[in-house]
Amino acid sequence: MTGDLGVAYFAEIHEQPQALERLLARMPEIDAVAKQLVARAPAIVRLVGHGTSDNAASYGVYAFGLLPAWTAVRDSISLTTYYDAPLDFAHSAVVALSQSGRTPDVVEYVVRARAGGAFTVALTNEPESELAHAADVVVALEAGPERAVAATKTYVNELATLALLAAAVAGRGPEFEDGVRSVAGLLADALEPLARSTRALATAFAYVGRLYAIGRGLEYATAREVALKLTETCRVAAEPLTATDLVHGPVAAVDPLFPVWTIASDDAALPMAVEAAKRVLAAGGMLVASGNAAAAIRGASYTLPVPAAPNPVLAPLLSVLPGQLFAGALALAKGLDPDRPVGLTKVTLAS
Amino acid sequence: MTGDLGVAYFAEIHEQPQALERLLARMPEIDAVAKQLVARAPAIVRLVGHGTSDNAASYGVYAFGLLPAWTAVRDSISLTTYYDAPLDFAHSAVVALSQSGRTPDVVEYVVRARAGGAFTVALTNEPESELAHAADVVVALEAGPERAVAATKTYVNELATLALLAAAVAGRGPEFEDGVRSVAGLLADALEPLARSTRALATAFAYVGRLYAIGRGLEYATAREVALKLTETCRVAAEPLTATDLVHGPVAAVDPLFPVWTIASDDAALPMAVEAAKRVLAAGGMLVASGNAAAAIRGASYTLPVPAAPNPVLAPLLSVLPGQLFAGALALAKGLDPDRPVGLTKVTLAS
Repeated sequence: MTGDLGVAYFAEIHEQPQALERLLARMPEIDAVAKQLVARAPAIVRLVGHGTSDNAASYGVYAFGLLPAWTAVRDSISLTTYYDAPLDFAHSAVVALSQSGRTPDVVEYVVRARAGGAFTVALTNEPESELAHAADVVVALEAGPERAVAATKTYVNELATLALLAAAVAGRGPEFEDGVRSVAGLLADALEPLARSTRALATAFAYVGRLYAIGRGLEYATAREVALKLTETCRVAAEPLTATDLVHGPVAAVDPLFPVWTIASDDAALPMAVEAAKRVLAAGGMLVASGNAAAAIRGASYTLPVPAAPNPVLAPLLSVLPGQLFAGALALAKGLDPDRPVGLTKVTLAS
Repeated sequence: MTGDLGVAYFAEIHEQPQALERLLARMPEIDAVAKQLVARAPAIVRLVGHGTSDNAASYGVYAFGLLPAWTAVRDSISLTTYYDAPLDFAHSAVVALSQSGRTPDVVEYVVRARAGGAFTVALTNEPESELAHAADVVVALEAGPERAVAATKTYVNELATLALLAAAVAGRGPEFEDGVRSVAGLLADALEPLARSTRALATAFAYVGRLYAIGRGLEYATAREVALKLTETCRVAAEPLTATDLVHGPVAAVDPLFPVWTIASDDAALPMAVEAAKRVLAAGGMLVASGNAAAAIRGASYTLPVPAAPNPVLAPLLSVLPGQLFAGALALAKGLDPDRPVGLTKVTLAS
């Protein structure tokens, strides 16, 4: 019935464990970049990217904050690139993320930050790209060619690269190398059961037009990425919110036809997700719970648990999988092609 | 017909020019805080707040970036407050925003940042609040008692306080004091005409369930605040996006029943708003254009222009007005009370 819809999208989700293994072979390069970062001792790590890469940057804030206890931020690209603000980059490191390495304002940002004295690192699938050449150093993401417009394996490898880099800076490289290897195995095992359960769920969601995806802390990146997959592949207006944002306003819009997808992982931010879920139920909303602590979300209509990660910092690499699979399944249920969303192209050259 | 719905909400919008005048009387205190900031020469200004205050923080990134060319960021509250990450605060300043001064995790963040060596500034309507006592110094926002749950005058005074503080740090306090005084006059003049045009527009939007609000750079804060007002008062799932975020995915969800509210102001980020609007039209979406460069958005179905500000950095104080008024008008058109949105309370003690 669905013909060839989503062939590339699902193949790339299934390739994620192998993509992680390819990245692990780059550990010596990641260690070398980490050594350079430690030598620079930046006052601030500025993360930049758009779309999926910006979602990965949200994760980078926590990976650097929790492992070496460094201040990392998603920086404003426009302040430097369009407004020409003469910020002081001398004590900064930049980590620029781009699948293609061709996003024009990310490249321009790196050129200016480097000229201003920043130490610049490019994370890209294309080590010969403009971005890679603009930066001081490059780490190849090793996700391999991505044919579906909606990125999946690039996102997971961006998270893993940020985790490995932050861990190496903190002197915990080998521990996280083992951790990412375990995650690759856990992802492989989880694929088939989750593909089945998300297909079953998709039929119940065929008429959903709007949705909130909530997470906090480490899992805010997951909420953003799940929302983006649903928006681009299924034309659902899916908005990511921190669990705390939700109760500061948007909970007022929730009704029984307005599902809230909660990412619940067993870490210090879990109580906020649990509390937000209670507020959603009180407002009459319908809950989907995913993450390794999905069972902690009482009253969820649907639960899509994932295995626990070897370290809470690595949980987001697993938490995104149900959302990726569900977005693809829902696209098929709606007769849409997740490989070629309407109105999108692979590289967004307009910045 | 509408009885007493929204009486406080509209009264508070109309009070905004007076609230700005009250704030201007605090200029000596703002100057004193600016001097302390200059003496500390922070490597990074960390802005924290939730909801409307977090939207104002988005503006603060640009006010500090464009005036003294300081790096300011919306910091992660959870990293410090829940995850206990031992970040280095010694070279940081903190600007904490809270209408009530009672938001628990913002207070806790300030306590920890100050203990870690940060210079901490509270911006609040309540100079005797917990937050004010936790910080090194406080600037009273002078918005006055706010009775509607959906904040309006607090937001505008938060923007003005951030602009005046950043300008004073840059040695441009008097220029911006004059600028904010002009803005108060321009706001007063714009109120009645915009109240009429937004009421006319509201009837056309009574059945809209979802909307994107887009802006970039300085006007991203406006997009966030307009979206929040629509979500909390009208139960519209309104998502704020940068003009660039939109073309990196969400444009795929746009259709003729999906309005996109574009904030267009005459500054360096305007070309991005114009380009994003073209993409919305190509996708069959319907455009509303506001801001002082609303006329630059070709093909908009509705245009809600505001007067030009004396300085582009002050434009957002005016740009938010059409959105505030429209959200109130749409709430009334739907029979909802903007003073008391369903499921929300004034102070969100759950963090």
